[in-house]
Amino acid sequence: MAEKLSGDARDAALAGLSGWDLVDGRDAIIKTYKFKDFSEAFGWMTRAAMLADAMDHHPEWFNVYNKVEVTLTTHDVDGLSNLDVTLAGKLDAL
Amino acid sequence: MAEKLSGDARDAALAGLSGWDLVDGRDAIIKTYKFKDFSEAFGWMTRAAMLADAMDHHPEWFNVYNKVEVTLTTHDVDGLSNLDVTLAGKLDAL
Repeated sequence: MAEKLSGDARDAALAGLSGWDLVDGRDAIIKTYKFKDFSEAFGWMTRAAMLADAMDHHPEWFNVYNKVEVTLTTHDVDGLSNLDVTLAGKLDAL
Repeated sequence: MAEKLSGDARDAALAGLSGWDLVDGRDAIIKTYKFKDFSEAFGWMTRAAMLADAMDHHPEWFNVYNKVEVTLTTHDVDGLSNLDVTLAGKLDAL
């Protein structure tokens, strides 16, 4: 269940993430992951896709060769939710 | 081996593709594929990734849920090449 983040809880949740930035003009967070090559990048995406689909919470992501740019937000709450923070943590742990 | 497309050969190659548009301000082509859900979209991306890596010619692509937006261009020739047209045809055939 998605709960929109606000106030201190939001600040604390975002402070717990590493390398994620707020997106200009949107209530969303973004991070770029870099890999050795396309194969390594897409291998990571495949694992991430399984994680995301199991959560039924999906990233917006852009890939070119060894780079994957991931944007997280929750359409259902029109902004950042606990699901985004959870998914961000899982992606970082891959 | 990438060969930059120009003139009549370029026109003929692009005319042979269905649903691909030229990108504003870049010598590149773009197409958006839509699927039933994320699982179907990512399944298609996985097959596309294997095709692309076998060609050593990689897309720029953006995915959100059931939508995959694919941009093709060839950095080595700074524009559209025969490899882009070949990859576009293979993606359409998946």
